[in-house]
Amino acid sequence: MNTFGTIFRVSIFGESHGEEIGVVIDGVEPGIALSEKDFEKDIARRRSGAKGTTPRIEADKPHILSGVFEGHTTGAPLAIVFCNTNTRSQDYDRLKDVPRPGHADFTANVKYGGFQDPRGGGHFSGRLTLPVVAAGVVAKKILEETIEEETDGHVQFRCDAALTEIGGIADAGQWEAALEQAGLEGDSLGGVVECVVDGVPAGLGEPFWDSVESRLAHAMFAIPGVRGVEFGDGFAAARMKGSEHNDCFSPDGIDGHEGLVTPLTNHAGGINGGITNGNPLVFRVAFKPTSSIAKGQHTFDFGKGEMTELQVPGRHDTCFALRTPVIVEAMAAIVLADLIDLG
Amino acid sequence: MNTFGTIFRVSIFGESHGEEIGVVIDGVEPGIALSEKDFEKDIARRRSGAKGTTPRIEADKPHILSGVFEGHTTGAPLAIVFCNTNTRSQDYDRLKDVPRPGHADFTANVKYGGFQDPRGGGHFSGRLTLPVVAAGVVAKKILEETIEEETDGHVQFRCDAALTEIGGIADAGQWEAALEQAGLEGDSLGGVVECVVDGVPAGLGEPFWDSVESRLAHAMFAIPGVRGVEFGDGFAAARMKGSEHNDCFSPDGIDGHEGLVTPLTNHAGGINGGITNGNPLVFRVAFKPTSSIAKGQHTFDFGKGEMTELQVPGRHDTCFALRTPVIVEAMAAIVLADLIDLG
Amino acid sequence: MNTFGTIFRVSIFGESHGEEIGVVIDGVEPGIALSEKDFEKDIARRRSGAKGTTPRIEADKPHILSGVFEGHTTGAPLAIVFCNTNTRSQDYDRLKDVPRPGHADFTANVKYGGFQDPRGGGHFSGRLTLPVVAAGVVAKKILEETIEEETDGHVQFRCDAALTEIGGIADAGQWEAALEQAGLEGDSLGGVVECVVDGVPAGLGEPFWDSVESRLAHAMFAIPGVRGVEFGDGFAAARMKGSEHNDCFSPDGIDGHEGLVTPLTNHAGGINGGITNGNPLVFRVAFKPTSSIAKGQHTFDFGKGEMTELQVPGRHDTCFALRTPVIVEAMAAIVLADLIDLG
Amino acid sequence: MNTFGTIFRVSIFGESHGEEIGVVIDGVEPGIALSEKDFEKDIARRRSGAKGTTPRIEADKPHILSGVFEGHTTGAPLAIVFCNTNTRSQDYDRLKDVPRPGHADFTANVKYGGFQDPRGGGHFSGRLTLPVVAAGVVAKKILEETIEEETDGHVQFRCDAALTEIGGIADAGQWEAALEQAGLEGDSLGGVVECVVDGVPAGLGEPFWDSVESRLAHAMFAIPGVRGVEFGDGFAAARMKGSEHNDCFSPDGIDGHEGLVTPLTNHAGGINGGITNGNPLVFRVAFKPTSSIAKGQHTFDFGKGEMTELQVPGRHDTCFALRTPVIVEAMAAIVLADLIDLG
Repeated sequence: MNTFGTIFRVSIFGESHGEEIGVVIDGVEPGIALSEKDFEKDIARRRSGAKGTTPRIEADKPHILSGVFEGHTTGAPLAIVFCNTNTRSQDYDRLKDVPRPGHADFTANVKYGGFQDPRGGGHFSGRLTLPVVAAGVVAKKILEETIEEETDGHVQFRCDAALTEIGGIADAGQWEAALEQAGLEGDSLGGVVECVVDGVPAGLGEPFWDSVESRLAHAMFAIPGVRGVEFGDGFAAARMKGSEHNDCFSPDGIDGHEGLVTPLTNHAGGINGGITNGNPLVFRVAFKPTSSIAKGQHTFDFGKGEMTELQVPGRHDTCFALRTPVIVEAMAAIVLADLIDLG
Repeated sequence: MNTFGTIFRVSIFGESHGEEIGVVIDGVEPGIALSEKDFEKDIARRRSGAKGTTPRIEADKPHILSGVFEGHTTGAPLAIVFCNTNTRSQDYDRLKDVPRPGHADFTANVKYGGFQDPRGGGHFSGRLTLPVVAAGVVAKKILEETIEEETDGHVQFRCDAALTEIGGIADAGQWEAALEQAGLEGDSLGGVVECVVDGVPAGLGEPFWDSVESRLAHAMFAIPGVRGVEFGDGFAAARMKGSEHNDCFSPDGIDGHEGLVTPLTNHAGGINGGITNGNPLVFRVAFKPTSSIAKGQHTFDFGKGEMTELQVPGRHDTCFALRTPVIVEAMAAIVLADLIDLG
Repeated sequence: MNTFGTIFRVSIFGESHGEEIGVVIDGVEPGIALSEKDFEKDIARRRSGAKGTTPRIEADKPHILSGVFEGHTTGAPLAIVFCNTNTRSQDYDRLKDVPRPGHADFTANVKYGGFQDPRGGGHFSGRLTLPVVAAGVVAKKILEETIEEETDGHVQFRCDAALTEIGGIADAGQWEAALEQAGLEGDSLGGVVECVVDGVPAGLGEPFWDSVESRLAHAMFAIPGVRGVEFGDGFAAARMKGSEHNDCFSPDGIDGHEGLVTPLTNHAGGINGGITNGNPLVFRVAFKPTSSIAKGQHTFDFGKGEMTELQVPGRHDTCFALRTPVIVEAMAAIVLADLIDLG
Repeated sequence: MNTFGTIFRVSIFGESHGEEIGVVIDGVEPGIALSEKDFEKDIARRRSGAKGTTPRIEADKPHILSGVFEGHTTGAPLAIVFCNTNTRSQDYDRLKDVPRPGHADFTANVKYGGFQDPRGGGHFSGRLTLPVVAAGVVAKKILEETIEEETDGHVQFRCDAALTEIGGIADAGQWEAALEQAGLEGDSLGGVVECVVDGVPAGLGEPFWDSVESRLAHAMFAIPGVRGVEFGDGFAAARMKGSEHNDCFSPDGIDGHEGLVTPLTNHAGGINGGITNGNPLVFRVAFKPTSSIAKGQHTFDFGKGEMTELQVPGRHDTCFALRTPVIVEAMAAIVLADLIDLG
C-alpha cells in the first residue's frame, strides 16, 4: 500500500541508506513545463543545515527518469530518483538488539520479521519525505496552472505552511535559545506547523469517506512523527458554542474572495460537510520531538534480555519539525491535485 | 467515492428523509454468527432521547437484505437497510435560499448544482452515521473472533470510546447543567471523545501512506462535525521533550500485556512508524458544537440577495457529540477489521 | 471486491433466493433525469420467457432507494433494489452433496467453507446480472448526455449487442429448431454475442494496465458463463499479416465519422495502444452452454463418497446466452461511463 | 492508472528511448531470497535475437534500487530499473506527421495533445514489457514459496506459456519458413500463446467483478497487441452442448491432483463461478501481427494533409508474438500473486 491518490497517484520507494530513493507519479497531465531546476527551492527548504537540524547534508539532486520530454510532462508516469550519498551505516549496528524508543525499529521487526533494512531507519526514514517534496512540487504546478486557467487568471493558488511553535514556544525570537539548550541536554523538541491554502475552488471533496479533511489528514499522518491534525478552530471548536463557531455567509466574503458569497469568518477552516467552501483551507499539524536523542534512555536490550542504558548515536535533528513545513505543503498539494482532478 | 477500505469495504447510501438508508459491506468472512439482534446495543447508544439530543426518535431497526444465511455470514456482500419513518420535511423549505451556517447546504449546492436532496441535510445528514454504526458492529465481531482465535483466547479485543468533555468541561457532573443552559439560550455545545482500543496485535499498518494513524484519522474525519484528531499525547507532544515523549521498552509491558515486550508507557498511543506496537491504541476526536441552533444568526439570503436573520427550525441535538462515541468506535473497528485482513 | 470502477463505481449485492438483490452506484453526476420507468426496456430484454429461456419469470421491478430527488439524480449514491418473488428453494436441496458440474457449487464450498447460500446459486446466480443491467441503464444515460453535450449534438452514443450464433449456427432462422432439439435432449447450447459501440470519442483509456480492452474484458468476464472475449478481428488477427490487419488512416474515415481522420478500416475494433481511436468499438463475447441440464451426468456425490447420476432439477434456460446481449451492453456502458469520467 | 493489483501491486514507468525504464512492486513479503541473477532466465526468453525478432538487442540488466537487503526482500517497495542503451531515435522523425497504422501514434496524439514522447513508441512501446517480466519473476518466486509452504511441499507451482501457432500454422516445423517468407515480403505475422498454470489452490478469486478470468484477462489485454483471450474451451465452448462442456467431478481428479476431488475434465480451464477449482488454469492469448512493416501502406500524412505511401523504418520483429510467452507468464503470475494474498 505504498501508493496514495485516485487519479493523481504518488508511489514512493527506497531506504535511508540504500542506493537511491524515488517517486513515481501517475496522472500528471501532459504539457506542464518541468525541469529538474523546478525542484530546487522546495528541496532546499527541507534540507538540514540550520540550527536544530542534522549535520548530515545530502546533495538531494532530483533525477527525472521518465515522463518528461523536451521540457514538458508527457502524460506518462513521472519517475524521479535521488541518490543517497552521505551515509554512515556503522552508526546503526547496535540498534538491531536495542530498538530505539519512539522509532519504528521494534514495529518494523514485528512486521517484517527481521528482514527490514535497519540502516538509518530503512524505508521508515524521514528521508523518504524527500520524494514526497518532489511530488509536491509537481502537484503545486498542476494546481497553479489549473486554477489560473479555470479562473482566467483571477485566482492564484497558494499553499503556505510555517512553524507556529517549537517546544511549546510561540515567540520565534526565543526558538534559537530553546534549541541550543535542548541540544546541550542531548534532548529534542517538537513543534506545530500551520498551513494555509488559498485559491482552492469551492466544491472539492465528498461527503463522508472522502471528505477534504479525511484526505488531508490521511496524508498528514503519513508524515513520520505527526501526533495531531486539526482544521479551522480545531480542538478549540469543542469548547465553543454553535453561535461562536458557525461561519455565517455574506456577499463581502473575505480577503481575496470579494464578489463570491462565502463564509465571512473561517472557523471551519474552509470546509463544510467535507467539501471546500471557497474560504482558505486552514489546518495545523503537531509534530512530536525527535525520537533519536543523545540523552540516556532506560530501555530493553532484546539481544541480552535485560534492561540497558541507550544513548542513540548518529547525527539527528534537535527539532525535525523545523524541516517539515515544506513537507506539509507537499502533502496538501498532493491531496488537492487529486481532488481537483476528481472535480 | 462512497466506499472505504481495501478488503473489508464499507459503502453507505441514502438521505435523511429518503425512503431508506443503508450499507453494503464487502469482504466479510463467512461463518460469523450474525442476526438483527446483534445491532441493538450499539444502535441504542447512537439513538437520541437523552438530554441534549434531538426529540426526533427513529425505530432504527436494521433489516439484513443479503449476505446472511441460516444465521451466519455467507462471505457474499452484506447489505443492511434502515427505514426513515419519522421525517418532517416541511421544516426545511426556507433553507434552499438561506444555507444554514456551519452546514453543507452551501457546499452541496456548489457541488451538485441544486440537484441535491435538501431535506434534513440529504446525504450529508448525521443520520448516515447509523449504517456506519451497523458496519461497526460487524467489524467488531470480526475483530473479536479473529483476535480470540489467533491468540487462543488469551487476548480480547475491546474498543471503548467515551466523551471526556462537553463545552470544555471535563467534569461530567456539570454537563447536565451546561446542556440545559445552552438549550435555554438556543445555542449548542461541542465535545471531545476519547477512544481506547485494546487487544490489537503488534504489526498492523504500513509505513507512510497507510499508517494506522492515517487510516484512523481518515475514518474519523469522515464523521460529520469533526475538527481534530490526535493520537497518544497528541498536540501536547509538540510541547514535550524527546526524553519525556519516547516510550521505552520493557519486559513488564503494561496492564494486560505482561509477558510481551512492549513499550512501558504509551505516549505514542500504541503506534510507531505507522505500525501498531502492541500497546492500546489511544486517540481523541474533537467535535464542533451542533450547527443548527435556534439562536438568531445574521447570514445571507441567496433568494433575496440580502442579509437576513436565521433561526434554524427543526429538532436538533444541543450537543450531537453525546451520540458520537459509538460512531467513533464503529469507525475504529471498520479501519482495524480491514488492517487485520491486510496483515 | 464487489465493486467495479474508479469514478463511476458499481457494487452489487444479493442472492438468487434471498429477499432482495440490488446495486449501489457511486459517481453519478447530479441532474440526470431518472425514473423507475427508464429501466423497463432493458430489463425486459434480459427477462426470460422466450423459447430457450427459463419459465421462472420475475416481476423485476426496480425500486430506487436513494440518489434521486424530484425525478433527477442528486449526485449522492444511487441505490436500486429488486425483490425476489418467484423462488422455489426446495429444488436445490440435494445439490449440497452433489455439486452441479459447470457450476460454482464446488468452488463456493471451498471458498466459503459451506456457509454460502446454496439456494439457486446464491450470490453466484445469473440473477445478479439484473442489477448490472440496471447500472447499465444509468451508464447509458450518462454516456448519451455527456457525448451529446460535448459534441453539440453531432455525435450520438449507441451501444448495440446481439447474438451472432447459437450452438455454432450463425443463421438465426435455424435457431428455434436447434433450441427445441436441445431442449428435447435435456441438453443446452452456447452462443456468441457481438457488441458495437458507436460515438465513443477518441482518446479514452490508458496504455497498459487500464487499456480499454483490459477494462472491457474485465467486465465481460465478470458475466457468469463467459469463455472468451476478442476485439476487432480477434483470434483471426493472429492468422493475418500486418499488411492485412493494420488500419490505415484516411480523411474519409468511416460511416458517421466523416470529417474526422480515423482509420479507414476497423480490424483493431476501435482501439490502438489501449486507447480509443474514434472508430466504433467492436468486440465479441463467447458464452458457454447452460450448465444446468436435465440430461444425466456421471459425477461425484460428496455426501456418500461415490459416483452418482445427476439430473439437475429446476427451471433453466436451454441457452442462457439468449438473455445476455443487454448484459453485455450494460457492462460496456459501465466501463465507458467510468472512462469518460476519467477523460 | 499505471498500477495493477490490490495487495501485490505493480507500477511501471519509462519510455522506449528514455534513460531508464522500471517497475515498483508493492506488497512483496519480506524474507524472499532475491538477487539480480534471478531475473536472467526470464529476461533472456523475452530478448530478441532469434529469427523473426528485431536486431535491436539490449543488455536488459536489472538494477535493484530498493526493497532488497542482504539478499532478501525487506517488505518495503521493490524498485527495479533497466537502462535503455541501444536507441536510434533518428528513425522516428517522420512518424510525427504520419502515424503508423496499427500503432498508438494517432491515439497518443489525441490523448496527450502532442506532448507524448514519440521516440520508439515512447511509453506505449513493447519495451515496457521488460519491467513486467521482472515483476513476473518476483511473483513466480512468491507463488512457488507460498504454495510449497502451504502444501508442505506436495504441490509445486508451475506456469508455462508457449506459442501454439504462428501465422495460423500450428506445426512448429513450418514456422521458420513462414517467418522468412513474411520477412522477405516486408510483412509480419501474428500468433497464439497458450498458458497452463499448475498448482494453483482451489478457492482463489471472487464471484463477478474479480473473477479469476476477469483479472487474468485484464492483465493479458494490457500486453500490447493482444486481440483475444479465452479460457478452457474458449470460443469453441459456444459451439458445444452442456453435456459436452461441463466438467464432472471425480475422486480420481487429474494428473498431479490425486486425492483431491476435482473436475475430471478441464473444459472450464480451471475456473468455476470466477473461482479456481483445483484444475490447472488454461487460457490462450491471440497476438496480432507486428504493426511496423517495411511493406508500403497507403495512409494519411497529417502534416501535408494528403494520403501518402508509408514504409515503416527501423528494426522490428517479423512476429513479436515469439517474444511474448514469458510476458504472458509474468502477467499470470502477477495476477495470481495478488489473488493468493487476497485468499
